[in-house]
Amino acid sequence: MDELAFIETFLRENAAYVRERHAARNQVTMTVKSNASDLLTEADLTVQQRAVEALAKAFPGDRLVAEEGDCAAYPENRNARCWVLDPIDGTNNFVRGLFPCFGISLAFAEEGVPRAGGVMLPVSGHLFLAERGGGATLNGEAIHVSDVQDIGAAKVELDFGWVEERDLMLNRAAKLIKSVGQVRCTGSAVVALCQIACGETDGFAHMTLQPWDYAASQVIVEEAGGMATRLDGKALHLFDGRKGVLMSNGAIHGTMRGLIRERRVARDQRR
Amino acid sequence: MDELAFIETFLRENAAYVRERHAARNQVTMTVKSNASDLLTEADLTVQQRAVEALAKAFPGDRLVAEEGDCAAYPENRNARCWVLDPIDGTNNFVRGLFPCFGISLAFAEEGVPRAGGVMLPVSGHLFLAERGGGATLNGEAIHVSDVQDIGAAKVELDFGWVEERDLMLNRAAKLIKSVGQVRCTGSAVVALCQIACGETDGFAHMTLQPWDYAASQVIVEEAGGMATRLDGKALHLFDGRKGVLMSNGAIHGTMRGLIRERRVARDQRR
Repeated sequence: MDELAFIETFLRENAAYVRERHAARNQVTMTVKSNASDLLTEADLTVQQRAVEALAKAFPGDRLVAEEGDCAAYPENRNARCWVLDPIDGTNNFVRGLFPCFGISLAFAEEGVPRAGGVMLPVSGHLFLAERGGGATLNGEAIHVSDVQDIGAAKVELDFGWVEERDLMLNRAAKLIKSVGQVRCTGSAVVALCQIACGETDGFAHMTLQPWDYAASQVIVEEAGGMATRLDGKALHLFDGRKGVLMSNGAIHGTMRGLIRERRVARDQRR
Repeated sequence: MDELAFIETFLRENAAYVRERHAARNQVTMTVKSNASDLLTEADLTVQQRAVEALAKAFPGDRLVAEEGDCAAYPENRNARCWVLDPIDGTNNFVRGLFPCFGISLAFAEEGVPRAGGVMLPVSGHLFLAERGGGATLNGEAIHVSDVQDIGAAKVELDFGWVEERDLMLNRAAKLIKSVGQVRCTGSAVVALCQIACGETDGFAHMTLQPWDYAASQVIVEEAGGMATRLDGKALHLFDGRKGVLMSNGAIHGTMRGLIRERRVARDQRR
């Protein structure tokens, strides 16, 4: 698939730049977005601009949906061909943290479903790639989800989101938090999801994820034998308006889903 | 201080072994302790046994308190000279996870207060050392906590503990979770605490931490300019029976403390 080759090339070409900006992160230009911990750096903007230019050459006419600025608008035709980019997922970790838990994520989608995706963790050098029907790889080796079935032994990543979403998150996820063996919060959805794909964790839930946070990882998880749905168990559509995302090794998917409170109930109880 | 030199030597001598066992973690012998995700590996036992033997030679008569087996009993004289070891903090991460977030932690204590401590993250090579009054270092360079003052911009690590402690944890920490800029859960207290010491995160709270989980990190955080107390704000004593641990950059300590519900209230409300 030409699209997958484009993804791989783009990720490889940008890894060194992001690694270099991370190494010099004390000098990186930074602004604050929706709240004091929602950060935007020059590196996010540069990678996004490079994607705009590379796509204009390789796939002219294709729409790019990406985290920053005007690109963040969802496409008018939500089923058309499009590309979905998070230039740096885990920007806060890019700026601060002993372990480099952030990644570049690029997917190609049609009908609201990712057909091919890649995630590059630039410092550790992990490159995850997948295309629909072709399996998933980590640095060229086939990967597979875990076979953990017991929720009490499962390692589950729960992203707590921005501070203004925290109340809703705690309300909906309290039973899940009280049931899983290990809770993790890495602060990067793409790192969390790729860990499911290679069997290092077992599940992930987020109440309000944006398409660029999971598009590439979704096809990687599914092609590694895992499962990806909305929180209500229905099929994901990248532009369905943030109905929440649940991904897992498949074996614990139904259990996780049953432990998440429905949104309507949560809203009523918050009043 | 002879004790600090012993700590540094011990950590350096054991880093390669732990790194090698981590690389071969699919073959590591493992058993389950209190619950399905509370793991014990041959590497934990080997490092602990080496500490027993090294201390018997270097400091005969000193007591070792450590996570595994008989060593986990608190000393009869809780103020006597003693050593506090976690052979591998973050055992679950040692066994699973893309990033090697686990460490060896060794402290020397008197009067229930750590006087010297060291934490080695064997794969990434971070070595944190401190002794009371002498400052804290990371790989030989002086380190200092962050100057973040706004809780809404703060990056705070919250360990959710074992599944049986989760209800209490959520009850006591809900307001804190809803207030901090970024929530993280790394799954290793020593990694979380050392990140405060070097300014990569701003705070940490745990409802029921054991002394080996924080003894070394406490002196490292304090010597890096941070603050360490019980959750009720009183002075920590390593063997005071798990009254909870709050550490921070100092600037957000009071705010964090005010956001944690008292234990008695929590119990009443759980009924």
